Amino acid sequence: MQMLVLTLDLCGTFAFALGGAMEGVRRRLDVFGVLVVAFVASSFGGIVRDLLIGAVPPAALLDWRYLAVSLAAGLMAFFCSSLIERLRSPARVLDAVGLAFFCVAGAEKALAFGLGPLMAALLGMLTGIGGGIVRDVLLAQVPAVLRSELYALAALAGAGIVVAGELLRLPPVLFAIAGALACFCLRMTAIRRGWKLPTAGGPGDPPA
Amino acid sequence: MQMLVLTLDLCGTFAFALGGAMEGVRRRLDVFGVLVVAFVASSFGGIVRDLLIGAVPPAALLDWRYLAVSLAAGLMAFFCSSLIERLRSPARVLDAVGLAFFCVAGAEKALAFGLGPLMAALLGMLTGIGGGIVRDVLLAQVPAVLRSELYALAALAGAGIVVAGELLRLPPVLFAIAGALACFCLRMTAIRRGWKLPTAGGPGDPPA
Amino acid sequence: MQMLVLTLDLCGTFAFALGGAMEGVRRRLDVFGVLVVAFVASSFGGIVRDLLIGAVPPAALLDWRYLAVSLAAGLMAFFCSSLIERLRSPARVLDAVGLAFFCVAGAEKALAFGLGPLMAALLGMLTGIGGGIVRDVLLAQVPAVLRSELYALAALAGAGIVVAGELLRLPPVLFAIAGALACFCLRMTAIRRGWKLPTAGGPGDPPA
Repeated sequence: MQMLVLTLDLCGTFAFALGGAMEGVRRRLDVFGVLVVAFVASSFGGIVRDLLIGAVPPAALLDWRYLAVSLAAGLMAFFCSSLIERLRSPARVLDAVGLAFFCVAGAEKALAFGLGPLMAALLGMLTGIGGGIVRDVLLAQVPAVLRSELYALAALAGAGIVVAGELLRLPPVLFAIAGALACFCLRMTAIRRGWKLPTAGGPGDPPA
Repeated sequence: MQMLVLTLDLCGTFAFALGGAMEGVRRRLDVFGVLVVAFVASSFGGIVRDLLIGAVPPAALLDWRYLAVSLAAGLMAFFCSSLIERLRSPARVLDAVGLAFFCVAGAEKALAFGLGPLMAALLGMLTGIGGGIVRDVLLAQVPAVLRSELYALAALAGAGIVVAGELLRLPPVLFAIAGALACFCLRMTAIRRGWKLPTAGGPGDPPA
Repeated sequence: MQMLVLTLDLCGTFAFALGGAMEGVRRRLDVFGVLVVAFVASSFGGIVRDLLIGAVPPAALLDWRYLAVSLAAGLMAFFCSSLIERLRSPARVLDAVGLAFFCVAGAEKALAFGLGPLMAALLGMLTGIGGGIVRDVLLAQVPAVLRSELYALAALAGAGIVVAGELLRLPPVLFAIAGALACFCLRMTAIRRGWKLPTAGGPGDPPA
C-alpha cells in the first residue's frame, strides 16, 4: 500500500513537472528556468499546503525523490520537447492522474493536521491546483486553472469525497480510491466533451 | 464590541471579495476563477501576515465565515456584474471601510505576537493591501496598489496610529477607532481629490 | 568578523534594493510602489527561506536595519534615477556581491536549521534569486533570472561549496569565503563574456 501511494505520488509529480517544463520550453526559458518551472509546477501546491498547516520544512524539501523526479521530467522536456508535443494525449492522462492523487493526498494531510472538513477539502484542491497557478504566474499569464475545463472542480470533488469518508468514519482507503477515481473521471470527461464552467455575460461574448 | 469587530471584519472581507470578483469577471474568468480571486483578494493579506508571524493555520482558514462571505460576494459579482458596475461609488466606500479595518486588525495582531512597532505597522499595511496585490498578480497585471491614490499610505497611517497608541500605553480601543477613521478619511479624500504620490521623472512624463 | 558579515549583508541588501527600485522607476510606479519593490527585491528571498525552514518571524522583519537600507536605496533610485542609470556597471558588481553573500548566508542558515545538504544548497540559491523573481512577478514580467547569464547557477555553485565544506567537516569560514568568491567570479565572468545557458530548440531560433 505504502509503495503504491509513493508510486502514484511520484507519477503525479512527474506529470506535473513535465507539463510545467513544456510550458517553460514554449516560453523560451533557458535550461535552468525550465527546471525551476518544472519543480514549481510539481511541488508548489504541496509546499503552500504545508506552510498553511504549519508542517515545516515542507515534505517536498525533505524527500529528495520529489526533486529528482521533477528534474528528470524537466530535462526530458528540455531535450525531447518535439517528441513530447506529439504525446499530448498521454501527458493529459498523466496530468489527470497527478491531479487525482494530489487532491486526495492533500485532503488527507490537512485532516491529519486537524483542520476542519471544509478547509481540508479546499486544501486538497489547492494541493492539486497550486503548482499550476504558480507556474502560470511565473510565466506572466493568467492561471489556466482559473479558466479551463473543470480542472479545480474535479480536484475539489476528489478532496470532498475523502473528507466525507472521514466525517462518516468509514475506511479511509476506500474513500481515497473513490475520491481519486472521481477526480480522474470528471477531469477526463470534461476534456473529452469540452465541458467548461460558465463565464459571466454568457458564453458567446468576446473576451475583453 | 466583539460583535462590532466581527461585523466590520466581515464587511471588509465582503468589500474586498466583491472588488476582486469584479476584476475577475472583467477578465473573463469562469465562475470558479471568479470565486478564487474573490477569496484571494479578501483573505490573502491576512493569510500572509499570519504566515509571517507564525500563526498557523491562518485565521482565514479556521473560521468558515470568511470563506462564506467571500463566496457570497463572488457569486453576487458573477451574477449581477452589470448592476454592481453601476454601484461603483458605494463599492469604493465599502472598500475603504475594509482597508481601514484590515490595517487596524493587522497591526493589533502583529503587536499581540510580539513584533516591534515598525514591523507591526508594516504588517498592518500588508494585511490591508496584500489581497489586492495577489489579486492583480493572478490577473497578470502590475498591482494597482503600487500606483493608485494613497492606498497603501492610508493603510500605513491607520496601522501607525494603532502602534503609536500601543507605544504610549494608551487605551487600544480609542486608537483602533482613530486609526481606522484616519485610514478611511485619507483614502476617501485621496479618491475625491485625485491625490497621487509622485512618480520619478515628474508627473507630466508619458508612461513607459 | 561579525561586523564584516553584517556589512556585506547590508551591502547585498542595498544592491538588490537599488536594482529593484530602478526597475520600479522604469515601470512608472509611484514612490511608494518603488519602495515596496525595493524591499521585496532585497528581502523576499530571505523571507521565503525563513518561512520554509520554520524560522518565523523572518529575520528581515525583526531587524530594522534591512528595512532602513532598502528604503534608503529605494529613495536614492527614485530621486537620482538618471544618475544611477549611468552607473550601470558598478551596480552590477554590487548586485553580484549581494548574490554571492546571500547564497552563502542562505545555505549556512538552512544547514543550521537541520536541512539536508541538497536542500540547503537549493535554499541558498533561493535566498539569492528569490527577491529578483518576486520583483519581476510584481512587475508582471517573466523573471529575468529564468533567462539571464548564469545568475542562478552562480548562486547554486556558491551555496554548494558551503554545503560541501559542511559535509567534509572543514572550517566553515574558509568555505563561506570560497563559496562567495566562486559565485561572484562566475557571475562577473558570465556577464563579461555573455555566457548563457542553452534554450531548447537551439540558440538561433527566434523567441516565441
